[in-house]
Amino acid sequence: MSSIITLLTDFGSADYFVGAMKGVILYSNPEASIVDITHEIPAHDIQSGAFTLLAVYKNFPAGTIHVCVIDPGVGSSRRPILVEAGGYYFVGPDNGVFSFIYEREEDNKVFHLNRAEFFRQPVSNTFHGRDIFAPVAAAISKGAKPAEIGEEITNHVRLDAISPIATGEDELEATIIHVDRFGNCITSLRREHLSENFDANSARIIVNDREITSHRNFFGEDENAARELFTIWGSAGFLEIAAFRASASQMLKAERGQKVKVVAWKMGRGEDVKT
Amino acid sequence: MSSIITLLTDFGSADYFVGAMKGVILYSNPEASIVDITHEIPAHDIQSGAFTLLAVYKNFPAGTIHVCVIDPGVGSSRRPILVEAGGYYFVGPDNGVFSFIYEREEDNKVFHLNRAEFFRQPVSNTFHGRDIFAPVAAAISKGAKPAEIGEEITNHVRLDAISPIATGEDELEATIIHVDRFGNCITSLRREHLSENFDANSARIIVNDREITSHRNFFGEDENAARELFTIWGSAGFLEIAAFRASASQMLKAERGQKVKVVAWKMGRGEDVKT
Amino acid sequence: MSSIITLLTDFGSADYFVGAMKGVILYSNPEASIVDITHEIPAHDIQSGAFTLLAVYKNFPAGTIHVCVIDPGVGSSRRPILVEAGGYYFVGPDNGVFSFIYEREEDNKVFHLNRAEFFRQPVSNTFHGRDIFAPVAAAISKGAKPAEIGEEITNHVRLDAISPIATGEDELEATIIHVDRFGNCITSLRREHLSENFDANSARIIVNDREITSHRNFFGEDENAARELFTIWGSAGFLEIAAFRASASQMLKAERGQKVKVVAWKMGRGEDVKT
Repeated sequence: MSSIITLLTDFGSADYFVGAMKGVILYSNPEASIVDITHEIPAHDIQSGAFTLLAVYKNFPAGTIHVCVIDPGVGSSRRPILVEAGGYYFVGPDNGVFSFIYEREEDNKVFHLNRAEFFRQPVSNTFHGRDIFAPVAAAISKGAKPAEIGEEITNHVRLDAISPIATGEDELEATIIHVDRFGNCITSLRREHLSENFDANSARIIVNDREITSHRNFFGEDENAARELFTIWGSAGFLEIAAFRASASQMLKAERGQKVKVVAWKMGRGEDVKT
Repeated sequence: MSSIITLLTDFGSADYFVGAMKGVILYSNPEASIVDITHEIPAHDIQSGAFTLLAVYKNFPAGTIHVCVIDPGVGSSRRPILVEAGGYYFVGPDNGVFSFIYEREEDNKVFHLNRAEFFRQPVSNTFHGRDIFAPVAAAISKGAKPAEIGEEITNHVRLDAISPIATGEDELEATIIHVDRFGNCITSLRREHLSENFDANSARIIVNDREITSHRNFFGEDENAARELFTIWGSAGFLEIAAFRASASQMLKAERGQKVKVVAWKMGRGEDVKT
Repeated sequence: MSSIITLLTDFGSADYFVGAMKGVILYSNPEASIVDITHEIPAHDIQSGAFTLLAVYKNFPAGTIHVCVIDPGVGSSRRPILVEAGGYYFVGPDNGVFSFIYEREEDNKVFHLNRAEFFRQPVSNTFHGRDIFAPVAAAISKGAKPAEIGEEITNHVRLDAISPIATGEDELEATIIHVDRFGNCITSLRREHLSENFDANSARIIVNDREITSHRNFFGEDENAARELFTIWGSAGFLEIAAFRASASQMLKAERGQKVKVVAWKMGRGEDVKT
């Protein structure tokens, strides 16, 4: 049984919120090893939290408990849930924040956290991170079983899948699902969406009427071409649009959610692409 | 004996300051479990640090050592102190940062840290977080007793109490004591300041000549009324002024320190309200 | 053998990068104690990372493994290295980020990390922090020896030394090597650069044609002189230009890299000053 508990929230780091969650966890299990993923998810941005969790959850050892609190509906009837998937636990609100985990780990179980004896009392209407999710994570870290803490459900909330859509024989439409600190634009396109014959160098990527035709294997490949836009297979497994020592997002005026046209790849499609 | 040491500072997270404190603690006690509360307290803002500490200290297990370094007077004659209160230890400068702990935990003891053998040598004039507070916290985590490290004092610095003031039969004046990351304005009004008959829905709150008459039990209660201002009992136990998916602070142009008039509550007052 | 691993990067804290590194470390060594120094080094700013590491590394217990990833050349031919110096380990790219460690700890050994069996597979071209540096740090924390993981080299990259230059009998030219969160400008001048007779109060410091003649022993020495510029010996051992409750950097329009003239000190020079 692992005692590693990660925290991923939109609480920022200026307030007492994260400290309160850590305190509650340690109050219940002083041996827990608490790891911050990030607390800088844009406020209420469920999809950004879902992406970040997807990019990182598998790096941790089996049994790790990932607590994810992006929770604009706190206090409403949205359910608190626990997910068991891929050898990990996930704790948070049932608002779609675990959607990409459901997509990636098809053999998953979802539990509605409805046993108040596992919560911190009294449960506030405004801070379930402290009053529900932290104590439940601590309980799991001490050996509680999902079926003891909640009731299995199957009607949990799912975001739209992030897989690209085929828009023509040699054309896909992908989405920018994240913009990172360096201004790199992470698209929803993964290698699995393409055939093995696919040649990144022959592709054209169109964002905001601007075409990107360079592809690189690493960021610093051509030091003389600073500020040139290029694509690159990023570390989370997605195709990224980047610029060496410059912000691709600023250069393209591109934001998360924007569509990206991918044309003239010898693409051949993998399983997930929607047609 | 707990080996949990929390850090609460205005050092920001871009510099080496926090890392240096952690190093010094681990140098002395490699088994210490160090928890960041926040390092984003506005520079030199003692009251903001005091509020954050108040909101969070009790979430931790008994014996936790809370180190709090908002210290504009570092190097001057302001005393370094250790506070024993409510089963916790508090370490930091004697500038009022522990005022709200004194208010909440009346059975407290304060010690002037005057035994240089517990400090990191040489003690700089600019960084007592590293040279005094971190090593003292480490010493306590290893079992040192307050009376061994310092000398008990009673003339420690206290900020003005944050309790509201009665300004009429059915009128209180409270203060905005904190604005959080979401723009929620936390007032100094707590349930204990009001009678049991108090009805939040019948109250009017006036900030900057603007009146707030809605009260909610949780943030997302009325999803259609986005950007409407309302009051809500917040997770730190204070009445907050909030707006669903919007910043109440920006909408009201309200800042910390500003007065808030509370009118026409069936208020009946609790103990702490000043008349 | 220590299991303390510190992380110092330019990854920011909004993305999944730091969480991924922590996961990989804990995957390999769940007992590792991971400490964040900072992740807010300006993107690609090797010198800023080098300074921060210099200011903090010695505060940790012997055996601590400092992982430092400011790595604009990731994926290129720049080598990943491990440094053994002063009883510590340092892991990161061979781009000069450890230069000030080489300067301070002359008895150092540098190893080219060229044993792929210690890396996370497959090694991406964009994220060696996760795929090379984190797993190597974990391996060291579990007892691996430098010579097992890499091959000793002597042609590692060094930044220009940060020691001041003598520009006249009583005149030095130093550099602003860091500006901290409070706007204090840290110069490259250390006490060791000056004779024991040196009197800080007799010196003139010239930055951007503006002269600073006050020296203080601590920040709050003269509370009435807020916004006055002064010099002070800072906590990292360097002379700093500061202003009480104000930003010296803003007042002087001074940035990192800018030259600082130091005149009319009874200076007498120590060893490191270049002539």
